[in-house]
Amino acid sequence: MNKTTFPDAPPGLRSPPFKGDARSDLKRERILRVAEALFSKQGYANTTMSQIVDKLGVSKPFVYYYFHNKQDIFETLSWRPTVECFSALEFDEDAALPAHLRVSKGLERLIRATIVNYPSAFFPYREPQVYRPEYRAAQKKMARHFYARLCALMEQGRQEGMLEFDETKITALAAGSLPGFLFYWYRPHGRLSSEAMVTELTKLSCRVIGLRIRKKTSKKA
Amino acid sequence: MNKTTFPDAPPGLRSPPFKGDARSDLKRERILRVAEALFSKQGYANTTMSQIVDKLGVSKPFVYYYFHNKQDIFETLSWRPTVECFSALEFDEDAALPAHLRVSKGLERLIRATIVNYPSAFFPYREPQVYRPEYRAAQKKMARHFYARLCALMEQGRQEGMLEFDETKITALAAGSLPGFLFYWYRPHGRLSSEAMVTELTKLSCRVIGLRIRKKTSKKA
Repeated sequence: MNKTTFPDAPPGLRSPPFKGDARSDLKRERILRVAEALFSKQGYANTTMSQIVDKLGVSKPFVYYYFHNKQDIFETLSWRPTVECFSALEFDEDAALPAHLRVSKGLERLIRATIVNYPSAFFPYREPQVYRPEYRAAQKKMARHFYARLCALMEQGRQEGMLEFDETKITALAAGSLPGFLFYWYRPHGRLSSEAMVTELTKLSCRVIGLRIRKKTSKKA
Repeated sequence: MNKTTFPDAPPGLRSPPFKGDARSDLKRERILRVAEALFSKQGYANTTMSQIVDKLGVSKPFVYYYFHNKQDIFETLSWRPTVECFSALEFDEDAALPAHLRVSKGLERLIRATIVNYPSAFFPYREPQVYRPEYRAAQKKMARHFYARLCALMEQGRQEGMLEFDETKITALAAGSLPGFLFYWYRPHGRLSSEAMVTELTKLSCRVIGLRIRKKTSKKA
């Protein structure tokens, strides 16, 4: 991932203590998983720090050692999928790939990151009112960054005769709508496996951007 | 619209008094428009009945004559676009049209209804926590009804060789994601007129369902 251009995390989230300490990381992760399940089942307002602490079978200071408060846990849970989703076009190993394949691979990654990170990937859509303005600003910056890259790659793919569309920005946003709107209807453990779902949705979002299987002969230099 | 099969309104919304009284309807409509602008600008929680009353320059009983409370106004505002969107496939005059044209026309209507009813069409996505369970149940029933019709028409269109897709339900939901996710990025008075936006998005959602311009010759009986 290109660290120099990638947007920053929202200010105020508590960094993990003892960075790189595997045992400490595991404990922090356990808190996140227990809280995620409670938030998902009961919603943010109905979930208390005491419930999280009880479910973990630990003391309150144990949790406060890792997180400032309930909102910090919720934002930390939400931030991870946000980074995974919106960094879907950031991978250096793809630099040699033609633009249309970077786009389709990027859309596939975006869709997979949304599904794999269920349910916390859906928290920002389900309870948008919970987040601090600083968090929302960082998330917006991240989304803008993603769509700027997507538009640039799409235009390159169109010039190379492999993508076909009219309005770049609207087409990009429409392609991004497919994973974005998943929160409204996706249920895990449904008829299709999550990988089959990724395959189906990637195919459909590639239709949106007018991906060709073969190059348009007239456009070839 | 087929009244016999179309889902009911959520229970508890206040019906307009003096049904069919044009002057009374206008007054009620004025309350809705003023409240819509306030909700859109400030959000639900930050908007009070007193603000609505002040902005209208009327007395509190005037507003309470038409609506139970603030939530009633908010749900009434939200219900209208919900009905318009999810009844996009209900028009009898289309009964003679082939399935694929009913589908593309229905998607166009869904997209137009979403855009024309900005901002109240977006309230359910922006502040999902506001609604009563009865309201949410009615909305869900409406969405299910729409997607059941859409899937049936899509399968008919596929049999007639005019649509091409694999997973009916996922493709239907993906096509519906385009207008559904508009709330996340749509801004009125942008570069494109709302009709140009409807045209672009309809084209893109028709790609999702694999609409053909000409019939696949092999499939014709």
